[in-house]
Amino acid sequence: MTLRYGMVGGGPGAFIGPVHRMAAALDGEWRLCAGAFSADAAKSRQAGAQLGLRPDRAYGSWREMVEAETTLPPDERIHAVVIVTPNHLHHPVARAFMERGIHVVCDKPLAVTVEEADDLCRLTASTGLVFAVTYNYCGYPLVKEARARVRGGAIGHVRKVVVEYSQGWLAELLEAEGHKQAEWRADPGRGGPSAVLGDIGSHAHHIMRYVTGLEVQGLFADLGTVVAGRAAHDDAVVLLELDGGVRGVLMASQIATGERNHLRLRVYGSEGGLDWNQEEPNRLRLLRPDGSVEVVHRAAGTRAPMAAAATRLPGGHPEGFLEAFANLYSEVARAVRRRDCEGGPTVHDPATGGDKAHEPDFPTVRDGARGIHFIDAAIRSQDADAWIEAGYALP
Amino acid sequence: MTLRYGMVGGGPGAFIGPVHRMAAALDGEWRLCAGAFSADAAKSRQAGAQLGLRPDRAYGSWREMVEAETTLPPDERIHAVVIVTPNHLHHPVARAFMERGIHVVCDKPLAVTVEEADDLCRLTASTGLVFAVTYNYCGYPLVKEARARVRGGAIGHVRKVVVEYSQGWLAELLEAEGHKQAEWRADPGRGGPSAVLGDIGSHAHHIMRYVTGLEVQGLFADLGTVVAGRAAHDDAVVLLELDGGVRGVLMASQIATGERNHLRLRVYGSEGGLDWNQEEPNRLRLLRPDGSVEVVHRAAGTRAPMAAAATRLPGGHPEGFLEAFANLYSEVARAVRRRDCEGGPTVHDPATGGDKAHEPDFPTVRDGARGIHFIDAAIRSQDADAWIEAGYALP
Amino acid sequence: MTLRYGMVGGGPGAFIGPVHRMAAALDGEWRLCAGAFSADAAKSRQAGAQLGLRPDRAYGSWREMVEAETTLPPDERIHAVVIVTPNHLHHPVARAFMERGIHVVCDKPLAVTVEEADDLCRLTASTGLVFAVTYNYCGYPLVKEARARVRGGAIGHVRKVVVEYSQGWLAELLEAEGHKQAEWRADPGRGGPSAVLGDIGSHAHHIMRYVTGLEVQGLFADLGTVVAGRAAHDDAVVLLELDGGVRGVLMASQIATGERNHLRLRVYGSEGGLDWNQEEPNRLRLLRPDGSVEVVHRAAGTRAPMAAAATRLPGGHPEGFLEAFANLYSEVARAVRRRDCEGGPTVHDPATGGDKAHEPDFPTVRDGARGIHFIDAAIRSQDADAWIEAGYALP
Amino acid sequence: MTLRYGMVGGGPGAFIGPVHRMAAALDGEWRLCAGAFSADAAKSRQAGAQLGLRPDRAYGSWREMVEAETTLPPDERIHAVVIVTPNHLHHPVARAFMERGIHVVCDKPLAVTVEEADDLCRLTASTGLVFAVTYNYCGYPLVKEARARVRGGAIGHVRKVVVEYSQGWLAELLEAEGHKQAEWRADPGRGGPSAVLGDIGSHAHHIMRYVTGLEVQGLFADLGTVVAGRAAHDDAVVLLELDGGVRGVLMASQIATGERNHLRLRVYGSEGGLDWNQEEPNRLRLLRPDGSVEVVHRAAGTRAPMAAAATRLPGGHPEGFLEAFANLYSEVARAVRRRDCEGGPTVHDPATGGDKAHEPDFPTVRDGARGIHFIDAAIRSQDADAWIEAGYALP
Repeated sequence: MTLRYGMVGGGPGAFIGPVHRMAAALDGEWRLCAGAFSADAAKSRQAGAQLGLRPDRAYGSWREMVEAETTLPPDERIHAVVIVTPNHLHHPVARAFMERGIHVVCDKPLAVTVEEADDLCRLTASTGLVFAVTYNYCGYPLVKEARARVRGGAIGHVRKVVVEYSQGWLAELLEAEGHKQAEWRADPGRGGPSAVLGDIGSHAHHIMRYVTGLEVQGLFADLGTVVAGRAAHDDAVVLLELDGGVRGVLMASQIATGERNHLRLRVYGSEGGLDWNQEEPNRLRLLRPDGSVEVVHRAAGTRAPMAAAATRLPGGHPEGFLEAFANLYSEVARAVRRRDCEGGPTVHDPATGGDKAHEPDFPTVRDGARGIHFIDAAIRSQDADAWIEAGYALP
Repeated sequence: MTLRYGMVGGGPGAFIGPVHRMAAALDGEWRLCAGAFSADAAKSRQAGAQLGLRPDRAYGSWREMVEAETTLPPDERIHAVVIVTPNHLHHPVARAFMERGIHVVCDKPLAVTVEEADDLCRLTASTGLVFAVTYNYCGYPLVKEARARVRGGAIGHVRKVVVEYSQGWLAELLEAEGHKQAEWRADPGRGGPSAVLGDIGSHAHHIMRYVTGLEVQGLFADLGTVVAGRAAHDDAVVLLELDGGVRGVLMASQIATGERNHLRLRVYGSEGGLDWNQEEPNRLRLLRPDGSVEVVHRAAGTRAPMAAAATRLPGGHPEGFLEAFANLYSEVARAVRRRDCEGGPTVHDPATGGDKAHEPDFPTVRDGARGIHFIDAAIRSQDADAWIEAGYALP
Repeated sequence: MTLRYGMVGGGPGAFIGPVHRMAAALDGEWRLCAGAFSADAAKSRQAGAQLGLRPDRAYGSWREMVEAETTLPPDERIHAVVIVTPNHLHHPVARAFMERGIHVVCDKPLAVTVEEADDLCRLTASTGLVFAVTYNYCGYPLVKEARARVRGGAIGHVRKVVVEYSQGWLAELLEAEGHKQAEWRADPGRGGPSAVLGDIGSHAHHIMRYVTGLEVQGLFADLGTVVAGRAAHDDAVVLLELDGGVRGVLMASQIATGERNHLRLRVYGSEGGLDWNQEEPNRLRLLRPDGSVEVVHRAAGTRAPMAAAATRLPGGHPEGFLEAFANLYSEVARAVRRRDCEGGPTVHDPATGGDKAHEPDFPTVRDGARGIHFIDAAIRSQDADAWIEAGYALP
Repeated sequence: MTLRYGMVGGGPGAFIGPVHRMAAALDGEWRLCAGAFSADAAKSRQAGAQLGLRPDRAYGSWREMVEAETTLPPDERIHAVVIVTPNHLHHPVARAFMERGIHVVCDKPLAVTVEEADDLCRLTASTGLVFAVTYNYCGYPLVKEARARVRGGAIGHVRKVVVEYSQGWLAELLEAEGHKQAEWRADPGRGGPSAVLGDIGSHAHHIMRYVTGLEVQGLFADLGTVVAGRAAHDDAVVLLELDGGVRGVLMASQIATGERNHLRLRVYGSEGGLDWNQEEPNRLRLLRPDGSVEVVHRAAGTRAPMAAAATRLPGGHPEGFLEAFANLYSEVARAVRRRDCEGGPTVHDPATGGDKAHEPDFPTVRDGARGIHFIDAAIRSQDADAWIEAGYALP
């Protein structure tokens, strides 16, 4: 059974909306059936038409959508809403749909404030709905392989983590030139309190947690604004104290001129290291104590079942960003079916085949909330110019 | 409007069938509506059910399918058939569907004999139908960039071409172990007269032609069978004389143990060189006479409009094999719409947006036929142990 | 004329002593004529014999050596002393030889305390002797190219610097296993107050300064000891405020298991970036705002005269660590000749030939002193758990 | 004891002469004591003076040199002559010095004709002198590691070899512009019958033999001249039949615009593959059947004692072309000492220390002769346009 979803945001000029649509389409498990794509009702309806929606489900606003979908018969209404608006709308949209029993796939960062994030955690717990946050990089098969290796002890005890996400696209003051993506990100009211951390630092924070299982217990942040005229942080370095005193560094920059999407994770343990880079996602470098390196390629040398289950093609036929993103949608589909369809069969059909034995594997509202708390702690550290306790208990 | 397609072949255990389905799904332009997935009628119908087909369109055989689809009303019947069977069935299946006015997307190699290939050329010309051959590697944006650069004179006059496709998966006698993919490929009756050339050499031949525009006028082939017990070639080197006396080498191997899908094209001209490798498809190396190298990344430093039109994501967010494959489907959709729908709008929706100004860009039946003639010439050279004239006029 | 040098330290089991000897030999400009290679007089004399020294110049101690050399006629005595002892001896040895008018080549770090460092600065100034500190990585031609590009404005205004030096060799407690190199480095009395900063952090600090010309004005240090039982820092991250508020990060680790000598410098400016990595020293990546990358190879695409003058081989014939190290010796030779020989001709004979127009280019005692002050500031920051003013005026 | 050598050729403007001098100097085992550097007597003497030779040993011609050196007392005269002239002089110079009992280090190719090559083989055998041919690439530690791995069975039975040496420096008709290096190479009278094979193809041929131990038994050559106006081959592809029917391809090009010194060897066996590239000489890629890759770095992950003995620096401190070249000189020194000094001790002093247990490891006159026979067979194949038997017995 194909699942139905509606989208809020992602209209003309958006970057991430089309990404979600392509990712959802790839495996044939999701079908776009409704949407409110723009704050402008006419534009929203037009976008829906172009995307082939039934006219009555190309809504003028998300409020209209949530009302109308609720009235549809169960076999027509959407199973899930995908939220790809500017950040400040994540919370109200998610809350509204959840209140009507609709599952949520929300882009990162989860929210703008810790209160919003905690509220969504509580609401998810109380409703039992599926809530995914698209920290999409954990969808890469070799990130799953890295996780399995680290957690399986392949590099011994983790001692040091270095994670960075460097971009150069904000090396100029694009927000002053009418660049839509830059505008809302650099506006704290819409993008949140720290643009660089919300936009990309939160990805770095999540991938580090996903692979190592370690949480941030303390941090010292150095947040900066490099480009003159900008109202938001565009460069950050955060020193981390992780569980058990493991040392870490997180770097995020949007003014690293010439960098594209350089998300790189390195983990050093007592018996080895590993190194993965999003721009070459089909290989994972495993560093051995003697200085030699084992390069595992996707579907060529991997051992982790979850990595195998997340791949569609033989080794040497590159998979990329969309395939990783689609893996989240596939896992969310499994979770939704488990809850709504009593574990009905999936139509997932990768070349590598095989049933998936693992629990649905996607970032949840709790992962999203940890990201918001991390940003909050970083800002408190920056304000205090001091190391900050950053451990917390999710609600 | 979403186009409808049916599939012949691509059932359980197949590699390329699911690839075609994912590629067709990615941009939302094609919908699978019918299929004959296996020579075993029961398996075929079961596969169709798993793929969500209407039971009456999950056919027991391709002959049944071609008859039944013809009786459906125009707004239900398939626009195109996708042929992903073993090679010896390409010709009869394609011919049957074309005779009913159905467009064809056929996997490579186009056919087993030059007579079959020429027949399909003639039939395409006389029917005016769209006939695509999925030399999918030309769908990569940076291959299009390479083509534009070479043809625009960026490296001066082409002097030397080195193209290779190395794999290692047939380093063992898999066909003796019940490996389905290996079995039919290594059987000349089903795979054609030279397995390694048909399977991967034809890709190398096409990408070389696509980028440089040069045709093979003469060749000397050294075809070999390395693995004991094998009935087909698994390693080939072909020396090429291209248009204007340009020198070339084509290497194809399936016994290069440890290689995955190492398709690499190098073109050297009087004023520069270029180097592209399918396993790192998001970058193109441009070699300058002074020995420095310009590395162009997909969507980062490209200049060719066709490269830009073939990309969905910003630079640094890797695209891969499926996206390249999907580009062929998107281009075929444009061609089908031009013919059947009088140029109706597409639903193509990449992040980079923009209309496509160029003529539909996909390998045609004529490209497929050139591949078959190339293999034929190589075998004649091998038999004669001599350089062979290899130029020919397509019918 | 070949210059004569003596060596203090660098006997059996040493790493850096043989490096200095090979580097000094490479261009034929220096000849080893004397030495006190070990604190053990017998071992020292034996080492001298093995190295082909005249028995009377294979000394039992450096004190003996300084006395004896002074009594030799000018055309026999050494022009320079090379100091490759553990760090705590750098100052007394250098002082003693300088007091007799002998030039100094001293390994880094220059000294153990800021007082020692300042003393050597003053002594150098008052004697007019040549004093080189072997921050050898600045000897790489492409580091010189990077310097010329940055200083020539190729990347616009510098905005961000990321420099790291990661090693894994101290991932185990080697100093407890009788590993000589580890022993003295991990002993604050002999290695200095912060092993990781003295050993490799000082290299990172220097290469950053050499390329960008920026000095550290403020810093926040996070120095750690990861391996249980160790008496010294083995992992460090230092946040930097450079001249003009430029942001920087310096990372140094000796517990990054699997890393060999990963010294990497990245500089991001308003109009581009650059990236150089010591383990692939023959290429320099220049990042353009559009995300494409220009890869300059040594002697292939370089523009800087100083880079050309520092290379011996055509592009594509790799040069390495020793060649870079030898470049320092060649430059020191020029400086010594200028002072002692009134600019006499050199016998430097690289394939690329050509006179060197630039001032002798090697790290001086002042560069060495800045390294010691940097370490001192880092320790003060660590102790204060606060950002520290780190600007200072050399004596 | 330092060994004494004289040099013939390698004067002003030469490329390879200074390389030999630096390589010989690096380990302190050889000292330049005599030379005839140019066909022009005045230039020769001037070059000798600049290199610091005693005036009476800076000879006006090699004939003068051979006479004069013979008259010197044994503890002054040269142990070996280094021949770095254009190719046509290799034979007469080598013969003359050998007739006086002087060892020979000769640049490749050994000679111009097979008769010359065979003559030098016979003369070496009859005199018992040491005769080295500087196929320098086999001096790289990781080439020795590759050899040890292949011969130790790490990749199973060798099945396929691909070796190439691509350069771009002759993409223009430099010989018409007064480029000295290009002039004699492109002149068959001085460079030999096939410039591209003599200059670089012979290196490719040797490294393939060195690593695999396989000899060429048959070949088909396609030799070409790409640049208009050139009198010599500048591009070659040679199909190889190796011992036991192993398939091979050797490519050599000097018109691959933008390539620097791209010498790459790939060997595929029944159980793995390996890949080494001269431009990244500090790493060796070992390909596993599952498609993962083990990257061994020099001094980091190597196992072969001969690789360890050929390295001076720890892993991650790159060694390059000169160090590899110096390894040949070090091995030749061992051979000379064994013969002349009854196995006297060496002064070799690398950081890695350790005695060398293996037989002196350098290419001999017999390796050089095989190179000449290979070129001869390639030309005969080209002339016959046919596969040629290429096995032969050395005299």
